[in-house]
Amino acid sequence: MPRLFTYKDFDSGSEKVKQYADKHTPVIICERETTRNTPFNVKVRIGTNVKHPNAPDHHYEYIQLWNLETLVGEIRLQRSSYGEKPLFIETEFTLIPKVSLRLEAIAYCNRHGLWISEEVFVKVKD
Amino acid sequence: MPRLFTYKDFDSGSEKVKQYADKHTPVIICERETTRNTPFNVKVRIGTNVKHPNAPDHHYEYIQLWNLETLVGEIRLQRSSYGEKPLFIETEFTLIPKVSLRLEAIAYCNRHGLWISEEVFVKVKD
Amino acid sequence: MPRLFTYKDFDSGSEKVKQYADKHTPVIICERETTRNTPFNVKVRIGTNVKHPNAPDHHYEYIQLWNLETLVGEIRLQRSSYGEKPLFIETEFTLIPKVSLRLEAIAYCNRHGLWISEEVFVKVKD
Amino acid sequence: MPRLFTYKDFDSGSEKVKQYADKHTPVIICERETTRNTPFNVKVRIGTNVKHPNAPDHHYEYIQLWNLETLVGEIRLQRSSYGEKPLFIETEFTLIPKVSLRLEAIAYCNRHGLWISEEVFVKVKD
Repeated sequence: MPRLFTYKDFDSGSEKVKQYADKHTPVIICERETTRNTPFNVKVRIGTNVKHPNAPDHHYEYIQLWNLETLVGEIRLQRSSYGEKPLFIETEFTLIPKVSLRLEAIAYCNRHGLWISEEVFVKVKD
Repeated sequence: MPRLFTYKDFDSGSEKVKQYADKHTPVIICERETTRNTPFNVKVRIGTNVKHPNAPDHHYEYIQLWNLETLVGEIRLQRSSYGEKPLFIETEFTLIPKVSLRLEAIAYCNRHGLWISEEVFVKVKD
Repeated sequence: MPRLFTYKDFDSGSEKVKQYADKHTPVIICERETTRNTPFNVKVRIGTNVKHPNAPDHHYEYIQLWNLETLVGEIRLQRSSYGEKPLFIETEFTLIPKVSLRLEAIAYCNRHGLWISEEVFVKVKD
Repeated sequence: MPRLFTYKDFDSGSEKVKQYADKHTPVIICERETTRNTPFNVKVRIGTNVKHPNAPDHHYEYIQLWNLETLVGEIRLQRSSYGEKPLFIETEFTLIPKVSLRLEAIAYCNRHGLWISEEVFVKVKD
């Protein structure tokens, strides 16, 4: 299967290796608690401290948000929308939860494959 | 070609016809002026006063944002992420503009085809 | 709305203009008659006599097949799957028709926008 | 991470369990040897002996073809294109290989998640 890379696969490496992993790793940014049947926003950002390139031959193509085995949404990134400079791509998903969530974001770099965030648990209350 | 429906195609119709058009029509919500080379957020909402169904056999499948002939981004909507009740789907795109924008949103309902928003002009300044 | 270019928009132009249009125009290749409730294959080819580039900054991104207002299918083209040289991209859709079809293919070039094929009528018999 | 189910995860189960796995599992059908820089067709079929449903609330949504960590292509399946009865969905990808391939297909069922085929090795010769 295509490997799903995580930051942890690289965090014992050199500084350069860790920067490579940082700029590729999607991070989920959202509240840890929300209310049932109410729109809930989840931001995904690629990279924490290191910006990823956005060149014609090296860029991110899509971001998916998953809740366990269920696809929550997918955003197709058009490279030219983000200019020519390295950047932190940020995007937002909305869902209306019924039960608690175990969210993960997966993003595809056309040169370095699939990268997955850490899992985020969101408690959904009445 | 597949027809691209707009609210105006229906606004001389009966109240029922106008509600049909309202609930299908994407609306762009954003500032009318922004700064070059800076991330700019554009919200798209489907429906102004009337909520669209979100049933297994009747729901919105994707939203595209266009700047004239250039695709800015595309969001694949997963029906089950939005529950069972009619709703106003809202989603957000980010782009980094170099020049002024003429934005339009196009959305696809699996039962009633392609719908397009009004065009929004955004002035981009240095 | 984003313009939907056709070959006919350009066929009174110079030889160079016609070549520009040729290499961008999707063409539907299929039988003109088929049987209800039976898988039916529809090939779409981009370009008739002139090959389109497949460079990192100039390539086709997706092909959609439409039956009037209904989306039949969509293929996301990964540029790197097609090498570096200009080519005729060919792809295939399958559908199981219930009634006669009015097919059109739409394809998106990241530099020159949306292009639409001629409509093809397919008679569907019992 | 979202689980990637394979037929082997279920093949020690009851007949019913094996049928569940069969109808969900994508299978790659292609030659095992091909020629460099020449279009190569890869068929993907979902299910070997048992047909998968195609109901509004239970159907396949997309098929991706991967070559190790590189996405070869993606087909968005429109449910209504395939009628109401269970079926073997078949689709075709084309690529122009430079080096030997290790292909896998991944498909997403909106109710039962991501399923992955066995890996197929294709030798690419001059």
